[in-house]
Amino acid sequence: MTKIIAQLCVSLDGFYSGPRDDEPNWFKSTEAAGFFRITRWVTESMAWRGRQHLEGGEANVDDEIIAESFARPGAYVMGRRMFDGGERPWGEEPPFRNPVFVVTHRERERLERLGGTSFTFVTEGLEAAIEQARAAAGEKDVAIAGGGTMIQQALSLGLLDELELHVVPVLLGRGQRLLDVDLGDREGIELVVERTVATPEVTHIRYRIEGRAPLVLDSRGGKYEGLAG
Amino acid sequence: MTKIIAQLCVSLDGFYSGPRDDEPNWFKSTEAAGFFRITRWVTESMAWRGRQHLEGGEANVDDEIIAESFARPGAYVMGRRMFDGGERPWGEEPPFRNPVFVVTHRERERLERLGGTSFTFVTEGLEAAIEQARAAAGEKDVAIAGGGTMIQQALSLGLLDELELHVVPVLLGRGQRLLDVDLGDREGIELVVERTVATPEVTHIRYRIEGRAPLVLDSRGGKYEGLAG
Repeated sequence: MTKIIAQLCVSLDGFYSGPRDDEPNWFKSTEAAGFFRITRWVTESMAWRGRQHLEGGEANVDDEIIAESFARPGAYVMGRRMFDGGERPWGEEPPFRNPVFVVTHRERERLERLGGTSFTFVTEGLEAAIEQARAAAGEKDVAIAGGGTMIQQALSLGLLDELELHVVPVLLGRGQRLLDVDLGDREGIELVVERTVATPEVTHIRYRIEGRAPLVLDSRGGKYEGLAG
Repeated sequence: MTKIIAQLCVSLDGFYSGPRDDEPNWFKSTEAAGFFRITRWVTESMAWRGRQHLEGGEANVDDEIIAESFARPGAYVMGRRMFDGGERPWGEEPPFRNPVFVVTHRERERLERLGGTSFTFVTEGLEAAIEQARAAAGEKDVAIAGGGTMIQQALSLGLLDELELHVVPVLLGRGQRLLDVDLGDREGIELVVERTVATPEVTHIRYRIEGRAPLVLDSRGGKYEGLAG
C-alpha cells in the first residue's frame, strides 16, 4: 500500500539548513553553508553522484540508504521554493525520474524532462498534490521531497505516514528547523522507531508516525504519588 | 583519564521538558508533563527503580544503559534549580552515591546524606565546580547531572568531553531546549558518534565533542562549481 513518506538531513540540533540571509548567490549564503555541512555525506555517496552524473563517491551503508530513498517513491510532492532553487541546477535530467507535483500559487504548464521526471504544478494545496501524486505512484510510495516547511506542514496536518531523519553529528546553533510543530498544551505527536542505522557520518532513524496523543502523567511509582497528588 | 560527561533524555524535537508555567505543584505543571513523557523509559527500568527504593521494573537494554550511567561518575555537578527541585523527593538517601557539587549564588554548608551522597555548594561558577568535582572523582568521570541549562552552559563553554542523548520518539512542540547553543556565523560544533544503541522506547547516542569549527562549503563536485563561484 502506498505510504506518504519523507526524509531529511538534520543537524543534531534539528536544523536542515543555516539561517536565510540576503546573499543573492544561494550557494554562498549562510543557508547553504549549513545545508552543505549536513548533506556532505550525501554528496560523497555513489548513488547520489550517479544521479547527478558525477563520477566517484563511496559505496557504503550511507550509499545504500540513498539508493533505497531513490527506489521507493513512485511520485514526489515538492514545495515551490525548492523547485525554484532546483530548476536550474537539476538541468535537463533531474534526479527524480518520476512525476513531481509542485505545490504553488502560480499556475504553470506541466514540464517534461529526460529520464522520467515531470513537474506538474498544483494550485489547490498540499493535500490535493498528495492525492495527485498517490494516483501517479501506483503501488509505490509518495515522497514529500521538501523543502523542510513542506514536510513540516504534512506532519502537522497528519498527512505523513513515515519520516526518516538523517541526523548529522554537528550543532549549527541557528537555521531552519524541521520539527517545529504547533501542538496543544500537554499534547504530543507519538512516533515508533522502525529502523536505526548508525554510521560514522550520520544516524539514520526511520519513524512511523502514530499521531497526536495527550501527554499523560505516569505514576512515578508509589513514592511520588503523594507529591503528584 | 577523567572525562566531563553529560547525558539527558530529549524528545525528537529537542526538548528535555515541557514549557514552564505558573502551576505551583511542579508535578502537575506543563514542564513536568513533557519531562515525564520523555523519562518514562527511565522510570520503567530496574536500575533506576532500585536506586529509588522502588520495586519492579524491566531488565533490558535500556536498563543496562541506566546502570552504566550510574557506574561511571565519581562526582556530579548540578545546577541550583535541579537541586532545589530534587532536595525533597530524593530524601535521606539520594540516588547519586557520590559527591555532588551544586553551582549556586547562595552559600550553604555542605550536606551529608546516606549512601555516599554529599552536596557541596559552589559559588564560584561552573568551571570551579567542575574542578572540585574532578578532584573528588579520582579516576572516574565527572557527570554534569543537569538541569538542561547547566549542560548547555558546559557545552557552550567547551567544558564537555562527551554527551549522550536518549532520544525519545515523541514530538512535544514546545518546552525547554537542550541544544540551544550560541555560535558564530558559519560556525558549528562538530561531534563524533561513539556509540548508538537503539531500543523500541529510545535511541541512545553517545557523542564525543570535538569542538567549534568553521562550516566550509564543499565543492558539490564539478557540476556546481560554476554556480558556487
